Amino acid sequence: MSIDQKRIADEWLSIQDEICKRLEAADGSGHFITDNWERPEGGGGRSRVMEGGRRLEKGGVLFSAVHGELPESAARALGVAGGGPFFATGVSIVLHPRSAHCPIIHMNIRYFETGERWWFGGGIDLTPHYIDRDDARWFHQKLKAVCDQHEPGFYPKFKAWADDYFFLKHRNETRGVGGIFYDHLDEKTGLSKGDLFCFTADVGRAFAPIYAHFLEKNGGLPNTEAEKRWQMLRRGRYVEFNLVWDRGTKFGLETNGRTESILMSMPPRAEWGYDLRPEPGSPEEATQNLLIKGVDWLA
Amino acid sequence: MSIDQKRIADEWLSIQDEICKRLEAADGSGHFITDNWERPEGGGGRSRVMEGGRRLEKGGVLFSAVHGELPESAARALGVAGGGPFFATGVSIVLHPRSAHCPIIHMNIRYFETGERWWFGGGIDLTPHYIDRDDARWFHQKLKAVCDQHEPGFYPKFKAWADDYFFLKHRNETRGVGGIFYDHLDEKTGLSKGDLFCFTADVGRAFAPIYAHFLEKNGGLPNTEAEKRWQMLRRGRYVEFNLVWDRGTKFGLETNGRTESILMSMPPRAEWGYDLRPEPGSPEEATQNLLIKGVDWLA
Repeated sequence: MSIDQKRIADEWLSIQDEICKRLEAADGSGHFITDNWERPEGGGGRSRVMEGGRRLEKGGVLFSAVHGELPESAARALGVAGGGPFFATGVSIVLHPRSAHCPIIHMNIRYFETGERWWFGGGIDLTPHYIDRDDARWFHQKLKAVCDQHEPGFYPKFKAWADDYFFLKHRNETRGVGGIFYDHLDEKTGLSKGDLFCFTADVGRAFAPIYAHFLEKNGGLPNTEAEKRWQMLRRGRYVEFNLVWDRGTKFGLETNGRTESILMSMPPRAEWGYDLRPEPGSPEEATQNLLIKGVDWLA
Repeated sequence: MSIDQKRIADEWLSIQDEICKRLEAADGSGHFITDNWERPEGGGGRSRVMEGGRRLEKGGVLFSAVHGELPESAARALGVAGGGPFFATGVSIVLHPRSAHCPIIHMNIRYFETGERWWFGGGIDLTPHYIDRDDARWFHQKLKAVCDQHEPGFYPKFKAWADDYFFLKHRNETRGVGGIFYDHLDEKTGLSKGDLFCFTADVGRAFAPIYAHFLEKNGGLPNTEAEKRWQMLRRGRYVEFNLVWDRGTKFGLETNGRTESILMSMPPRAEWGYDLRPEPGSPEEATQNLLIKGVDWLA
């Protein structure tokens, strides 16, 4: 089977479909609306967005496949030569649940091609408002299982990569309990293009059962006012990470990307306060203390 | 009178004091708390923050005076040589009112010195949730009056500079009705250091009566649910500008600045939705249509 652009984009589309169906079932009430869009310079996308679900307050499952001439600014950011043709296709997800006891989640799978070069990237990471070590262990076990099916070295490497990537330098804290993150995977891994395609598709397919699990287990749990407040503050941190540090967001906004797609990651509501610190001994403090790099969640 | 570092910092401190007093009087209930802090590498600041006032929901009036060796990263961003000694002092303000009928406002005055070079910068800009042309005209008249006392060319130049600076490229909209913005003012303006100091101090002193006017006139006006929703969405845009485009914020967060001071500009609460557009013919649409560069608010 030849792994061409169409084959990859078709796989991503079918992953997007599967995920939306599973999430609608787990929500029990909300539906994704579909927004098809075209990119004037070539290609387009299929955005699926849910707002006001029973358990999912706001979220997007976005597919895009774009092509054209690679702009110089984009080439510089990618560290490749500009001006030539490029093709990029991916699925991106951010979900903000209603309950503070259910985590925020992010997933991305992507394929990029320019000239003779191609690579895959991807990852899933979890941002609990309240960290539950059992949940974090279960989550990392699932990710490790996906990685181990393809290459035993992947999980430790991509887990560390996620710790480094999903880090708010200005707060000296991680975004959550991490997960896996990888980029620029090509034949230098020792795996073929087909192998890397299958690995990345498996990462994409791992998403729906993982998040449906959290949504079904915790998505209906009620919150106290203090828990809602903490959730809103954690969402504020999510905004800070995405707008200040996330390379994909910065790159998209600075290179005239599709703003509504890029900013679907924003929470429906977020809050900020001045110099807030969790009460000593509180569950909020316990979570804050775990927002550090290098935690072995499998232990 | 010699315009040395201490003289400038003392003036800024007295401006901070005046502003806080006037704002407390206009609020009628809220008080600023004072947070003195030190910078390990030299200098420090006096942050004044109000949360939960009667009319001011959240805001900060921050003073800082810092010195030391200019880090390479900071020097690059400023376009000067790194490694040498520097001194920087400023007052920065962002105020988020409760009522959607009262505008968000921002003010900054600053002085920077490194080696033989020195310059002043500053500005005031207004972000109404609902644009009232009479209010915008009055605001720009006040700013023009301050400028004209010092140099007739300043207002048109600094008004255009504010239009360019307070612009959300990814939304193709201005942050609000602009105001004045200037930077790197030195002897090349034809004005002396003393003149530029007096001009910048006058900009600082213009702030309190301007914002007290809006707070007293509109700060107590009630809002419908639709107006609150629009206010929260406009605050979302304010977050986007500050975290994505504001050079001071980016620079501060990337160079290990004091996070709580830098992010005092964040609103207490903000909201986002997917691809929202104001209703045709609504007051929200009227405001949206005025978020463009080059409006002559004095007309």
